[in-house]
Amino acid sequence: MVEKQDLTPHSTFADLTVAQLLAALSSPDPTPGGGTAAAIAGAIGTSLLVMVTGLAKSRNNLADEKAALAKARAALGPITSRLTELADADAQAFNAVMAAYRLPKATDEDKAARTRSIQAALRGATTVPLETLRACVDAAAHGRVVADYGNQSAASDVGVASGLLKAAAEGAASNVRINLGGLKDEAFTAAAEAETARLLAALADQDSR
Amino acid sequence: MVEKQDLTPHSTFADLTVAQLLAALSSPDPTPGGGTAAAIAGAIGTSLLVMVTGLAKSRNNLADEKAALAKARAALGPITSRLTELADADAQAFNAVMAAYRLPKATDEDKAARTRSIQAALRGATTVPLETLRACVDAAAHGRVVADYGNQSAASDVGVASGLLKAAAEGAASNVRINLGGLKDEAFTAAAEAETARLLAALADQDSR
Repeated sequence: MVEKQDLTPHSTFADLTVAQLLAALSSPDPTPGGGTAAAIAGAIGTSLLVMVTGLAKSRNNLADEKAALAKARAALGPITSRLTELADADAQAFNAVMAAYRLPKATDEDKAARTRSIQAALRGATTVPLETLRACVDAAAHGRVVADYGNQSAASDVGVASGLLKAAAEGAASNVRINLGGLKDEAFTAAAEAETARLLAALADQDSR
Repeated sequence: MVEKQDLTPHSTFADLTVAQLLAALSSPDPTPGGGTAAAIAGAIGTSLLVMVTGLAKSRNNLADEKAALAKARAALGPITSRLTELADADAQAFNAVMAAYRLPKATDEDKAARTRSIQAALRGATTVPLETLRACVDAAAHGRVVADYGNQSAASDVGVASGLLKAAAEGAASNVRINLGGLKDEAFTAAAEAETARLLAALADQDSR
């Protein structure tokens, strides 16, 4: 099956120029959509935090503050990469859902196979934004260390990063919940909803500190 | 004077790949920083809204609903372009501030010239994020029409867009206020602060509807 996104010469959104990404998001094609946008916004916020981990607070930063910044830096780099992968995975997962809905439903066998495919695809379309949510909450947690020990001249960069990570996390959570709405596996649904609520609570807790 | 950003072969962030943009944001160089990130996040949110203006609610959308969506679409495209330009302008404005602070201050004449340059540069570094804030608030206002008349299957895309525009607007406002803090022109400062407050209030008002 040929998906519309296969028409572009790029296999990953990270390789698109910013202008091409904006054009792809603007197109009426369903992907890339909000899930991809949230993951990329999360990657942008995470990258800003990485920048600030490279700016020591002052020349006489305490050794343990430098160690904390270095630890945050080591954790945040891979989160940026992870979020760019999730930007791709989100579009693929959503395309799989649409492909499943387009399966034939002429016979009872068709219908049963189509239902199974839709359920499997919706599970994927839930797991991907849940991972995006988790990555954004992880990055935001490291953001506390960056805010405390990074150079205060970059405080507004940390502020922008936190705002983008929060928006990305909430967008991802909303995508998890929409796709959970179509799932019939109650145990999976309950576990995913509990994890979503836990991650959002962790984010709110960081925010209020 | 050669700015660090001149070392890259690109003159506009829109021409960087997403991976290159993330690497540039991650680098400890002060630009691109939060102002550029906010403008690009705003452009991502605006692009998502453009996507939804291309998805009619249903085949029997009322004529006035279609007209409202078309009007929003026509307004949102240029806002996306404006925000990508502001991403570049923000880095340039911040570089100008840093260049002014590096001017010589050996003599009284030097000092006076340096002060004038810093004040002029800070004014630019205030005007640019104020324009970013304005563009994000404008886009968010059109988002209400998109939410009301766009296809409901894209409701989560509109939600992600609204969250990103809000985060971008708040980040831009915080950059306006930080740079206002260094300005001596009280009339300019008061006017810019009043406009920032007005735009944030308009955003909050949209949000609560």
